[in-house]
Amino acid sequence: MTTDQHPDFFVRHAELLDQAVAGAADRGYWTPYPEAPSASAYGAGAPDLGEAAFRDLLDHPFSLEGHPTTGTVPATEVSPYGFPLGVSYPALVPEVAVATAKAAAAAWRRASPDTRAGVAAEILARLNAASFEIAHAVQHTTGQPFMMAFQAGGPHAQDRGLEAVAYAWNEQKRHAVAARWSKPQRKGGPLVMDKTFTPVGRGVAVLIACNTFPTWNGYPGFFASLVTGNPVVVKPHRRAVLPLAITVRIAREVLAEADFDPDVVLLAAEKPEERTAPALATHPDVRIVDFTGSSEFGDWLETNARQAVVHTEKAGLNSVVVDSTEDYAGLLRNLAFSLSLYSGQMCTTPQNILVPREGFPTDQGRRTADAFAADLGAALDKLLGDPARAAATLGAIVNEGVLKRVEEAAALGRTAHPSGELAHPDFQDAVVRSPLVVRLEAEAEADQDAYTSEWFGPVCFVIGTDSTAHGLRLLHDCVRQYGALTASVYATDEAVLEAARTTALEAGVHLSENLTGQVFVNQSAAFSDFHGTAANPAANAALTDPAFVTGRFSVLQSRRHATAEEQVNA
Amino acid sequence: MTTDQHPDFFVRHAELLDQAVAGAADRGYWTPYPEAPSASAYGAGAPDLGEAAFRDLLDHPFSLEGHPTTGTVPATEVSPYGFPLGVSYPALVPEVAVATAKAAAAAWRRASPDTRAGVAAEILARLNAASFEIAHAVQHTTGQPFMMAFQAGGPHAQDRGLEAVAYAWNEQKRHAVAARWSKPQRKGGPLVMDKTFTPVGRGVAVLIACNTFPTWNGYPGFFASLVTGNPVVVKPHRRAVLPLAITVRIAREVLAEADFDPDVVLLAAEKPEERTAPALATHPDVRIVDFTGSSEFGDWLETNARQAVVHTEKAGLNSVVVDSTEDYAGLLRNLAFSLSLYSGQMCTTPQNILVPREGFPTDQGRRTADAFAADLGAALDKLLGDPARAAATLGAIVNEGVLKRVEEAAALGRTAHPSGELAHPDFQDAVVRSPLVVRLEAEAEADQDAYTSEWFGPVCFVIGTDSTAHGLRLLHDCVRQYGALTASVYATDEAVLEAARTTALEAGVHLSENLTGQVFVNQSAAFSDFHGTAANPAANAALTDPAFVTGRFSVLQSRRHATAEEQVNA
Repeated sequence: MTTDQHPDFFVRHAELLDQAVAGAADRGYWTPYPEAPSASAYGAGAPDLGEAAFRDLLDHPFSLEGHPTTGTVPATEVSPYGFPLGVSYPALVPEVAVATAKAAAAAWRRASPDTRAGVAAEILARLNAASFEIAHAVQHTTGQPFMMAFQAGGPHAQDRGLEAVAYAWNEQKRHAVAARWSKPQRKGGPLVMDKTFTPVGRGVAVLIACNTFPTWNGYPGFFASLVTGNPVVVKPHRRAVLPLAITVRIAREVLAEADFDPDVVLLAAEKPEERTAPALATHPDVRIVDFTGSSEFGDWLETNARQAVVHTEKAGLNSVVVDSTEDYAGLLRNLAFSLSLYSGQMCTTPQNILVPREGFPTDQGRRTADAFAADLGAALDKLLGDPARAAATLGAIVNEGVLKRVEEAAALGRTAHPSGELAHPDFQDAVVRSPLVVRLEAEAEADQDAYTSEWFGPVCFVIGTDSTAHGLRLLHDCVRQYGALTASVYATDEAVLEAARTTALEAGVHLSENLTGQVFVNQSAAFSDFHGTAANPAANAALTDPAFVTGRFSVLQSRRHATAEEQVNA
Repeated sequence: MTTDQHPDFFVRHAELLDQAVAGAADRGYWTPYPEAPSASAYGAGAPDLGEAAFRDLLDHPFSLEGHPTTGTVPATEVSPYGFPLGVSYPALVPEVAVATAKAAAAAWRRASPDTRAGVAAEILARLNAASFEIAHAVQHTTGQPFMMAFQAGGPHAQDRGLEAVAYAWNEQKRHAVAARWSKPQRKGGPLVMDKTFTPVGRGVAVLIACNTFPTWNGYPGFFASLVTGNPVVVKPHRRAVLPLAITVRIAREVLAEADFDPDVVLLAAEKPEERTAPALATHPDVRIVDFTGSSEFGDWLETNARQAVVHTEKAGLNSVVVDSTEDYAGLLRNLAFSLSLYSGQMCTTPQNILVPREGFPTDQGRRTADAFAADLGAALDKLLGDPARAAATLGAIVNEGVLKRVEEAAALGRTAHPSGELAHPDFQDAVVRSPLVVRLEAEAEADQDAYTSEWFGPVCFVIGTDSTAHGLRLLHDCVRQYGALTASVYATDEAVLEAARTTALEAGVHLSENLTGQVFVNQSAAFSDFHGTAANPAANAALTDPAFVTGRFSVLQSRRHATAEEQVNA
């Protein structure tokens, strides 16, 4: 029943897939996609060719051969570095998008998990080859600095995609494809049945992507749905269409080469005046939704897209508890970088740093919360003192809303480190801001209002607590009530670390301990770190794990008596 | 961090658990629990001792040592065989049930998956030893005939429970418990992190059980929640408390022996005037719900218990398509038994038999739909002609609602086989009815109203179609719109069987082909047949598969830099 006329992609990538399954299980370091944006890793000329490919896209309609369309989405994307992209896209109203995807998926549904995983791995290989082109597209839609846009938008996003492929492929192979059931009887020979077990995709999938990490947050759901036999309608954020348009273009090329209908993957960009996500997500034929974005719309989707399985990654309040350290300089360096990276515009960036008001021990002597806030400000100034390094770390502010929040946070008073405007050495119109540090008190009512909201962007609070135990309690309660994607602790005493682990397990959040070097709480490594837990309100799924893929397909069986002849031959 | 002071149960059952995991993957025949209700399988005197244990329970308050209580649930259960059980139970209001379960679960959550699986396997071993006691309790709450009550309520339910244990245990072991992540750096030594990965239960689980299969439908969710580290509040159907009360008693005994708080498992029986399931299911601390019952309440739970993962098995319309056969006598015998077994009071019993109006070929010549309906009636009379066999097959009618439906269906007119009242040889007050067969037409509007509703109980429709293709189309549309747990086809031509398989895959239902012997469409074998698909409206889960367990826990991680010393030793 499968139409595996082009199994070559599976043969080509079979070893990679086996490695990916093993890597996802053992959680050590593993990646097939080089993270260095270098010619030595990606081939002579790759950086320049990638940039040229990106430049060629600007100021033109985006070309998606044979893609259905119901009009044109005019060019509206503007780089946070200060220039309009000038790229228009085919428009596709929800009804047509879903009907086209559904109609295109028959052969894809019937194909074997091996075939589908092979096609997905080939898509990823070509995405990897296009990493420079994609990096520029990510940089100029999200505002990420180039190095981050390359790594997080390219190879690291591909890692997450491959991780999803591995889980989706492996989950579909958990049961025998066929089995003989032979039940002994009290009298006579056994009862013998032949059975088949077929994984069948749930139906049309919709990916609702975000502004800041269109590929990194989008690829897991995209590939998990695809490999489990579902067509995918990609609904990009209106300000970050280009990286996913390139992704859709490449996916459609590979599908067509494998003799599948390319409409298994569709781009559903929306016009400026439209808001298509609600209609797409609640369409009766849409059976899977993946979403990254606001808690408000994520909660709406969970409540209203009842016909679908809905995977959401929403907002949260990430906390750091500081108890003690033997490497105060490392702590400050590490935190300053975490707060500065992409101007804190990450769902994983710490916001609330919980510090004993009266002070904590360090290798440089005791530090009160006030002193710590001042030291953190100084560390930020040191990190961001060099304009080139500052630009390469901060990137650009993605939209007006972020700027507005920084202003509001500054108006709270007690600024320990102001958010400054910085010039970008390459893009004079880029909007660049350094992190704001505000000094709050855990028990002050007005302060509580502030630190129990999410201030997405370059805003962090140093919050004075009575004690480490108090800080851990606040961390726990914040995670339970508002959700969190990360948590972090600094402590020299194993008993305190143990208490922090217990707190994190009870709260339902991943914990980083004593990060003082080149690993940052807001970064997670595919195949090793889970992103999100589904155990607190910030997300109802983890990227990626078995739970992220099992709801995307069912195993359907048939059974019949084995004939006497078949029984003899068995 | 685990408190594995009593690993003996895991050691005792480790081989069984390994076998169960292998059996669930290969889907062949496997069971550790003998299905014969015999002294040779269960020990000399077991049948009599089990019956005596059941008799001893009657007319007494049910004893659950140390179980919390907020009052008494008066004795209200009445055997469908015609006598009151006279068993009262401790009452437990939802608020207290959830709070007690939550408070009791700390050590259980911290225990390892091995420890929890060992405890669960020991509970199952003791349930198996109590199979006769449970069989009588099942018979006299559900109305199932004794043999079925023993098998489906005892060893087969234990099979399903063990299957859930196997999936839940295995899923928690999919990832390394600890890993060293070592990332090469361009300069200097690698970045090295030590990480831990801990499966953590989602929270309090509530099992909302049904009247007809309290153990078979209840054990999968019960054991899946338990093994993934969650306490379970068991809310039995008010007419079928006793089988689950025995289950809770045994689970608590084993938990206590393993040094866990027995309140990890609680019975929350409801008083006659209460309806506690909505409050239990929507309690903020309840994070998992398993439900078997009506579509109406199942849909309500899916919509309203938003804080929980909700697994439902609801109602559906099961169809049979008859195209042709080379064993007409076998077909009739098999269908007559399927319709008669437990008076059709199974969510898997066929209701709509779709037959070409103008006839289909058999080894006994061509049969029109009318002739087939008459033949089926004769086959029923033959099967049920012997009073002892009739009683052993039909069991008793579980409640008034079923009787009322049979009367309504008879009033549709065109009865091909009337539902008759039968005397039970052992229980003079038992309410026993034979199946009603009604002859309908696919295209008649009034008939469509009839056959597109579920008539749970001994009601079946022989529906005239234009052709087999027409019948397959109706099967498909019924499954998509109303849901189904089973589908069945009779055809001699492989092309027709292939079309039926395609139809079933597209509709999202399991298919049985040409059942003419001792396998019946309404029976599914654990470790081989999946029960439900989650691919159509009859259920949002399959019992049991990975998707049934992955939502019950999260994997939480911690990470820290490896010290230089640890790195050298690694």
